[in-house]
Amino acid sequence: MKKMDYQNVKGTQDYLGEAAVVRRTIRRTLEDVFIQYGCKPLETPILNYTELMASKYGGGAEILEEMYTLTDRGERELALRYDLTIPFAKVVAMNPTVRMPYKRYEIGKVFRDGPVKEGRFREFTQCDVDIAGVDSQLAEAELMSMALDAFDRLDMNVVIQYNNRKLLVGMLEAFGVEEERTNQVVLVLDKFEKVGMKAVLTELGGLGLSPGILEKIEAFLTDEANTSFRFLETFVEKSELVRQGLSELEELETYLEALGIKGKCVFNPFLARGLEIYTGTIYEIFLADGSIQSSIGSGGRYDNAIAGLMKTDQKFPTVGLSFGLDVIYAAMSKSTEKQETSGLDYYIIPLGTPKEALLVASEYRKRGLNVELELGNRKLGKALDKANKEGIRNAVIVGEEEVRKNQVKIKEMESGEERVESFDF
Amino acid sequence: MKKMDYQNVKGTQDYLGEAAVVRRTIRRTLEDVFIQYGCKPLETPILNYTELMASKYGGGAEILEEMYTLTDRGERELALRYDLTIPFAKVVAMNPTVRMPYKRYEIGKVFRDGPVKEGRFREFTQCDVDIAGVDSQLAEAELMSMALDAFDRLDMNVVIQYNNRKLLVGMLEAFGVEEERTNQVVLVLDKFEKVGMKAVLTELGGLGLSPGILEKIEAFLTDEANTSFRFLETFVEKSELVRQGLSELEELETYLEALGIKGKCVFNPFLARGLEIYTGTIYEIFLADGSIQSSIGSGGRYDNAIAGLMKTDQKFPTVGLSFGLDVIYAAMSKSTEKQETSGLDYYIIPLGTPKEALLVASEYRKRGLNVELELGNRKLGKALDKANKEGIRNAVIVGEEEVRKNQVKIKEMESGEERVESFDF
Repeated sequence: MKKMDYQNVKGTQDYLGEAAVVRRTIRRTLEDVFIQYGCKPLETPILNYTELMASKYGGGAEILEEMYTLTDRGERELALRYDLTIPFAKVVAMNPTVRMPYKRYEIGKVFRDGPVKEGRFREFTQCDVDIAGVDSQLAEAELMSMALDAFDRLDMNVVIQYNNRKLLVGMLEAFGVEEERTNQVVLVLDKFEKVGMKAVLTELGGLGLSPGILEKIEAFLTDEANTSFRFLETFVEKSELVRQGLSELEELETYLEALGIKGKCVFNPFLARGLEIYTGTIYEIFLADGSIQSSIGSGGRYDNAIAGLMKTDQKFPTVGLSFGLDVIYAAMSKSTEKQETSGLDYYIIPLGTPKEALLVASEYRKRGLNVELELGNRKLGKALDKANKEGIRNAVIVGEEEVRKNQVKIKEMESGEERVESFDF
Repeated sequence: MKKMDYQNVKGTQDYLGEAAVVRRTIRRTLEDVFIQYGCKPLETPILNYTELMASKYGGGAEILEEMYTLTDRGERELALRYDLTIPFAKVVAMNPTVRMPYKRYEIGKVFRDGPVKEGRFREFTQCDVDIAGVDSQLAEAELMSMALDAFDRLDMNVVIQYNNRKLLVGMLEAFGVEEERTNQVVLVLDKFEKVGMKAVLTELGGLGLSPGILEKIEAFLTDEANTSFRFLETFVEKSELVRQGLSELEELETYLEALGIKGKCVFNPFLARGLEIYTGTIYEIFLADGSIQSSIGSGGRYDNAIAGLMKTDQKFPTVGLSFGLDVIYAAMSKSTEKQETSGLDYYIIPLGTPKEALLVASEYRKRGLNVELELGNRKLGKALDKANKEGIRNAVIVGEEEVRKNQVKIKEMESGEERVESFDF
């Protein structure tokens, strides 16, 4: 009979074997670090009212087009969440008694019916930390320090690029760009590192910017001192926004210096980040060796979104940081050896002794060890093969002879050494 | 300005505060136990082809009605998964090289657009372990032992009720129930403990069973020795199925005895479990004190479903066990005190010393401690209030005076004792 061909839906996939183990390590490491930093867990639903997800403080037109929508049996118009930020804002809105500052993390699936490419899926996992209720750049410093700790634990060498959107927007204002065009221009500037000067200027020209403005933008993009404030400082006089941005940047840098992490953080005045919601500091995390081009984490300050969603005048200054589990996994699986590592301490092999083997497994587990029991009736040779392939540390042979003597035979797989241990059957 | 009213979609909810902490504990404890038992992690997509989810080896008509369906931009007919079993079977079908026995776990969200009541949601989390490729009752014994370990770690006193579907089906056969009615009758019998004899007999009568058959069923249900095999054994002669079922039951009980867990496991000949896919052992886990009526975990053997899905003659005997995170959470939150327990070791309070406080937080975290930094500029009194409310163990006061002396002041919150520690700023 022919086997039925099953397929996964485009943009989704299964993770099994070593892939699932690596992903678990990432997830748990991130969660451990979040806990260490005093972040509180939050779980929000995947199913949301379309109206909420389509709010103007949400992901913007491009993301809304990619939203999966459905109708339930009660004729509700629903959408699958496309990020964890709107659900977070909703929780703040629905729980007025929540203690501020509110620092929460959530790890969960999000959905976007968009283009699929390497490391970019339609169903993927985000790991987000957001801090609501903090004006000071301390919040940004905490998150950047947390990101460095997390990647350090994952043995990944990273660099954080940061900028401040007030600088960009203020500068464009001072250049004479009309306010309603600012975001379009920022989106184009965001591509500078990827596509280069010529492409950026062409696209900006297409937006109808005047030659005079284009000239100024070119001068900005060619400024060599892109790690200093020299160029930006010439705008302080002209723009209150630039002045504010610079002052925030300086505050942040004082903290990065105090933490001794300034060397891992690079000011990038061209960094723009697409989303309109950002109002201040923005940052993206990259692999130091550049082996993966896209960022493996990113975020920034969005001071207006929660209040906007809540339609309140109350202030909810907020900073967020989002880790992409899938891209971190892609980065790690490039550097990790393909060797299976089950993490198992013992593999109990019954040879006609199922009851006794169960007992040995149970006893070893009580000692806190990770133990697999052979359930498939493998013969000794095949069982030892499996132990080798899966990188299990010890095989425990429970033969009838051993049971009679109240013993088990333990084979240390790497050295091949065997020893006998007494066991009270 | 009036705040906008946000609502969660019916049957979904947010978990924050202590609720989210308890749920994290359950999730991580279960995962730790799964790892200890040598289960391999698996992640499958929530989005699936409707055709796959609607397979006849799936959840049956009732669940299919409750399936959330949608169409993506590529006009694919999709459904949200309603369990983790079909996705597991799909993975086995798609990965013919997977090593058998394959013992995997998955923790993830599933969706059912059905009735909502206490502890029953439309979007909920399942924690499943399944073992494919094992004929022997060793697999059942492993899973039952694992369940007891897991609830032991969660400090929950439980009882596992078990039965074998071959016994039930074989008996009904011997009573003269027609084969195509068997499953309907089993569904009614499943309600016996809840609704009682009269209601069961009335409903069975409504199915058109003859008075003779009803009499036999009544005799079975009134048999007092419902923890022995006495009654069942009278059927061995008449039914090959009953004979097989009894033999499996005896094998299982030998293992439970060897493991010393027979006292926690109770044979219940009336236990039926709704789903048609089960072919052998079935079990449900209940709180020993009965404070929650519904089961907090359940599963059984389904030897035909994977092969059926794969349309193959190859055999895939499989046993599964599913823990319901939401009902376990409901059970735990009844017994747990409502006191907040942040699990935080230190709470760093800057008093005009943000840089230095950052440094202290960073230093303490390097020691592996869980540390929260006050980001909201709370005054000392309010900060100590918060430390008390959230059950943080120590407050660390970083005042300007302390910084000058290269010191921090540590207040142990429970005793109120203060001490000074040197810190190299």
